[in-house]
Amino acid sequence: MKEINPPKITDRDNALFEAGIKLGTLYHQYVGSPIAIAGIDSMEKAIQESIFAQPYVESVFVEIDKKKVIAEINETFMYTELKGSMLNVRAVIRFNTVRVFVSLKMNEKLNYPLMQIDKIEEDIEK
Amino acid sequence: MKEINPPKITDRDNALFEAGIKLGTLYHQYVGSPIAIAGIDSMEKAIQESIFAQPYVESVFVEIDKKKVIAEINETFMYTELKGSMLNVRAVIRFNTVRVFVSLKMNEKLNYPLMQIDKIEEDIEK
Amino acid sequence: MKEINPPKITDRDNALFEAGIKLGTLYHQYVGSPIAIAGIDSMEKAIQESIFAQPYVESVFVEIDKKKVIAEINETFMYTELKGSMLNVRAVIRFNTVRVFVSLKMNEKLNYPLMQIDKIEEDIEK
Amino acid sequence: MKEINPPKITDRDNALFEAGIKLGTLYHQYVGSPIAIAGIDSMEKAIQESIFAQPYVESVFVEIDKKKVIAEINETFMYTELKGSMLNVRAVIRFNTVRVFVSLKMNEKLNYPLMQIDKIEEDIEK
Repeated sequence: MKEINPPKITDRDNALFEAGIKLGTLYHQYVGSPIAIAGIDSMEKAIQESIFAQPYVESVFVEIDKKKVIAEINETFMYTELKGSMLNVRAVIRFNTVRVFVSLKMNEKLNYPLMQIDKIEEDIEK
Repeated sequence: MKEINPPKITDRDNALFEAGIKLGTLYHQYVGSPIAIAGIDSMEKAIQESIFAQPYVESVFVEIDKKKVIAEINETFMYTELKGSMLNVRAVIRFNTVRVFVSLKMNEKLNYPLMQIDKIEEDIEK
Repeated sequence: MKEINPPKITDRDNALFEAGIKLGTLYHQYVGSPIAIAGIDSMEKAIQESIFAQPYVESVFVEIDKKKVIAEINETFMYTELKGSMLNVRAVIRFNTVRVFVSLKMNEKLNYPLMQIDKIEEDIEK
Repeated sequence: MKEINPPKITDRDNALFEAGIKLGTLYHQYVGSPIAIAGIDSMEKAIQESIFAQPYVESVFVEIDKKKVIAEINETFMYTELKGSMLNVRAVIRFNTVRVFVSLKMNEKLNYPLMQIDKIEEDIEK
């Protein structure tokens, strides 16, 4: 490891850093929200518009798995909480010349709502 | 103070306790959400439907003060965060025979987003 | 139901309303926090001191169920999230002449982290 | 822009993506927490241990600006909420062969709690 010539921070670095921020924000702001079937559409829309408001976001798609909400509904109180496992998110982040595609989706094998980098586009036209 | 005959817990007690839960939930779940002008409507709707999903809620009205959002928009990044001072909330909670009306609104004199009990109705018909 | 002489709002009403606010706040601020075994003590302490900072709180006790944390730890990533079912909370709220004891604890029968009023003391000495 | 040979996702990409997740998580999980002077130490410690529990975190340092907390304390209720502007965070994230240093700090010029990449180390020894 050499620190003498540390790597210059690139658009690609910043695009990925910003993409991570957006998914961390989305998850920890909204997971835990009370939710019933009737509120799925408005929650999806609000989360999308909230994350879209943040810098460098070109697009964001949020889907809340209706079947999982139904499966988790408390029978006495007839609602549940938004859980990470219910979320299916795709976001596109652009930082100057670089566009990255990231996602958040339940990975059943890992039993974990996994955030990952799906694709990177460099040298995009301004 | 006598503990020998502690007061029995009434519908009124439970209605007020539940009303407090709803306002505390609303505030601490959603304050901090990234928000821009374009996302105000969807955020209001999502919060309303989320809190309405909880037990004992008869109605809930959420207004986000557009002027305050505009005033707080960061000029570089063109968004802000939902703050308690932007919220104007009214909720009606019913527990069996008792209905309570509560609200959350910025109290400028106290410089505090104040939650308060506005009205209590007892012996309501089932 | 008569609105002609609506009930006057009492210390007892306010004590219960405030107690509800505290439990709603605690739940929706901290549920979802990343947590590992090593962080249980500091999380309990931080939540206690945070809720104690709020108005009308005489005391608050927060216990995070270590066994449930262990049971939920993701085997690949070695941590989990704070869930409502892990929380055991007792709080004492005083509003002028009235002191209320409330709690949050997993109710296994209801499969729900239940918030409830445990005791009310009236006419306490100032 | 060519999609024919999309860039391979590297350790560096993942390190930065993960670093962003951690800062987004920290911010949106804990901002809004009720806080008084007495609770600063325990909150700093809890946040540190919470974020440290997440994958790929080598170290995390959290400082809450005491002067800013004091300045924001509500005079009637004697507490405030944790705000992004009060946070001074440094985190080191490692993904295989790459270590990145990131931070969150109030940028007074931008009037914004800025998250940024401070340094990248590549080809570190395993």
